[in-house]
Amino acid sequence: MRIEDMTLISIDDHVVEPPDMFEGHVPEKYKGLAPKVEKNEQGNDNWVFQGASMGTMGLNAVVSWPAEEWGMDPAGYAEMRPGAYDIHARVRDMDRNGVLASMCFPTFAGFSAGFFQKAPDKDLAFAMLQAYNDWHVDEWCAAYPGRMIPIGISPVWNPEQMISEIHRLSAKGVRAVTMPELPHLQGVPSYHDLDYWGPVFQACSDTGTVMCLHIGAGLGALRLTPGAPIDNMIILATQVSVLAAQDLLWGPAMRTYPDLKIAWSEAGIGWIPFYLDRSDRHYTNQRWLRRDFGGSLPSEVFKAHSLACYVTDPAALKNRHEIGIETIAWECDYPHSDSIFPNAPEFVLNEMNNAGVNDDEINMITWQNSARFFGWDPFKHISASDATVGALRATATDVDVTIRPRAEWKKLYEAAHA
Amino acid sequence: MRIEDMTLISIDDHVVEPPDMFEGHVPEKYKGLAPKVEKNEQGNDNWVFQGASMGTMGLNAVVSWPAEEWGMDPAGYAEMRPGAYDIHARVRDMDRNGVLASMCFPTFAGFSAGFFQKAPDKDLAFAMLQAYNDWHVDEWCAAYPGRMIPIGISPVWNPEQMISEIHRLSAKGVRAVTMPELPHLQGVPSYHDLDYWGPVFQACSDTGTVMCLHIGAGLGALRLTPGAPIDNMIILATQVSVLAAQDLLWGPAMRTYPDLKIAWSEAGIGWIPFYLDRSDRHYTNQRWLRRDFGGSLPSEVFKAHSLACYVTDPAALKNRHEIGIETIAWECDYPHSDSIFPNAPEFVLNEMNNAGVNDDEINMITWQNSARFFGWDPFKHISASDATVGALRATATDVDVTIRPRAEWKKLYEAAHA
Repeated sequence: MRIEDMTLISIDDHVVEPPDMFEGHVPEKYKGLAPKVEKNEQGNDNWVFQGASMGTMGLNAVVSWPAEEWGMDPAGYAEMRPGAYDIHARVRDMDRNGVLASMCFPTFAGFSAGFFQKAPDKDLAFAMLQAYNDWHVDEWCAAYPGRMIPIGISPVWNPEQMISEIHRLSAKGVRAVTMPELPHLQGVPSYHDLDYWGPVFQACSDTGTVMCLHIGAGLGALRLTPGAPIDNMIILATQVSVLAAQDLLWGPAMRTYPDLKIAWSEAGIGWIPFYLDRSDRHYTNQRWLRRDFGGSLPSEVFKAHSLACYVTDPAALKNRHEIGIETIAWECDYPHSDSIFPNAPEFVLNEMNNAGVNDDEINMITWQNSARFFGWDPFKHISASDATVGALRATATDVDVTIRPRAEWKKLYEAAHA
Repeated sequence: MRIEDMTLISIDDHVVEPPDMFEGHVPEKYKGLAPKVEKNEQGNDNWVFQGASMGTMGLNAVVSWPAEEWGMDPAGYAEMRPGAYDIHARVRDMDRNGVLASMCFPTFAGFSAGFFQKAPDKDLAFAMLQAYNDWHVDEWCAAYPGRMIPIGISPVWNPEQMISEIHRLSAKGVRAVTMPELPHLQGVPSYHDLDYWGPVFQACSDTGTVMCLHIGAGLGALRLTPGAPIDNMIILATQVSVLAAQDLLWGPAMRTYPDLKIAWSEAGIGWIPFYLDRSDRHYTNQRWLRRDFGGSLPSEVFKAHSLACYVTDPAALKNRHEIGIETIAWECDYPHSDSIFPNAPEFVLNEMNNAGVNDDEINMITWQNSARFFGWDPFKHISASDATVGALRATATDVDVTIRPRAEWKKLYEAAHA
């Protein structure tokens, strides 16, 4: 495989929602009530809505900062690389990074709409959630056909509205919704409860909508050691995916809804062989529990429902056949601190080569598995020959990838907006 | 490798403490105050001490039961295979299973002496803890020289007593103490607190005593999904090892005490490559945190301090070079439900062959790594040629390995004790 011949779909990136995103998407009766970006006392940008406020965390958009400046401090738009929030800059950065298509998760809205769930007026919150989705589909994704794979957020606090929104989004071409890893941590029933979740799983199954369970939302499932440094939180975030898998595989979800599809977003993939071996051993060994997987092994059921997504996972790629070569998909995580920019193609191919991954397998991992799982044709708007790393990069030789201190980014922003 | 030429050390088994264990080990002033086995209202055997009681859980000693009868119900001695609590029967079972040597963790006492920690009179509790250790070393282990690798329990609630007990045990030839995975869950400071744990780590380092962190004790670190079936608890128990590793590797313990040795007992090994890759990536990527591993990678520090122990872990064995071939050790887990009895040699070799493990590596995993890590000479009392699976099994052709319903075990017991 030559670097320039690779095709890359990143199935997990992030959009920092731009301040004007609600314009044109709010119903007449709610005019003026949409979340607004305001500067707080420290001069940092915050989204404010119904008395709650939410910053755009520094660690969430540090691409092109020197690593020494990263941190959890809130930052404003002015300090970010514009690709974080500006679709035109974003697509240029994707070109430079050789990435054909991207799925962008929300920032202030929360991976499972947590920001809207907290709002006291739920009718208003649902209207704004729909406005978010419309903006995401009709502006962020529609601006460059073929470059963004749309993903919606859904009102986890209301099953009827979840179902109607999943159908509404599907009709708009949306392929996925981001959902909680462990919904009971958000005060709604767990995935074991089919009275609550069954009709939602059915709506996802009927529309082919993938449930994306992004790491982070379920961190509360771990009683993190008091006084431990921040490393614990960052390193252990992927451990929660196993807890979510457990609920969906050993609870009724996967076995009752054969068409239900789960993407393990930014979960890494190295936990999977261990978890599946342990699941199969438990199933065959603890026979007194009489669990019924319809004649299959738990590992087979898991693989039939799952897309396992990773940014970098060198040892796990050596175990790719235990995970299932059709189950693995690559992600870039732009513009977060784990992001591989602007040299994703080199980084990815090097990791593949070290693990002895052959060309067919590379194509499955870097784009084919994601395209199949999300039912998304990558070459509908762009020909395969124009979609390669080499072809995309040829259009973006002028993209500036200089690492700049945040203060310099701010100066550039102020000059551009003067 | 031929099955009969294998040598097996099992570095994690369990003893169900026999009812007479305290006889001869209790100081004069505490005579009559030792824990006692009493039948409760349901007719089940329970240990009773200072107002607390603790059963011997069914799932803890189900070897040679039909799997359909396993369960969490309390059972009495009468229903167990005698090897669970009788040292003479145990060694015969080890012979039949081809196991040269075994490390036996406690049952009612708790992996980190939790039963004694709960007792209101701590002086009395410490005396009984010492009595447990003396029984374990002077009776259970001494009965058959060379067959049992002694492991003590320690009073986690009192650092001075922990230190003195570690030194006392070391002088008696004990190679290890079983310690909590996450001590803060037991109401004492976490492993990040060197004021509390530093002198204990130093005592372990000075005496070459291994800290064994057996799964189960730290299960409270996971907020298990309400209403989830028991499968969650059993399958997810090994997830806690990552949390404990995080505290010891990213906290000060491993880096401040270069001779500190940690065995990850029954933790499985499949989590390790994923965790180490994630740790190394975090270290090299999140440079703003300025963590100091003395010029090594976190993965190197972890391996230098760790023995990774597993019962069965087929995919992980394929990743053995990422874990570190000198880091892996096998366990049998007799007499628990995960135990491989009486066909451990066949099971182990089959798993090794499927993973392409060569003969030298098999020897490292089945006995050499454990012997080195615990500083224990397996051939001091038994020659290497008498220690093989073939030689041990030749002495035990008459051991009955029939699977019997618990009611039949009870009849046999009653006949033997009539």
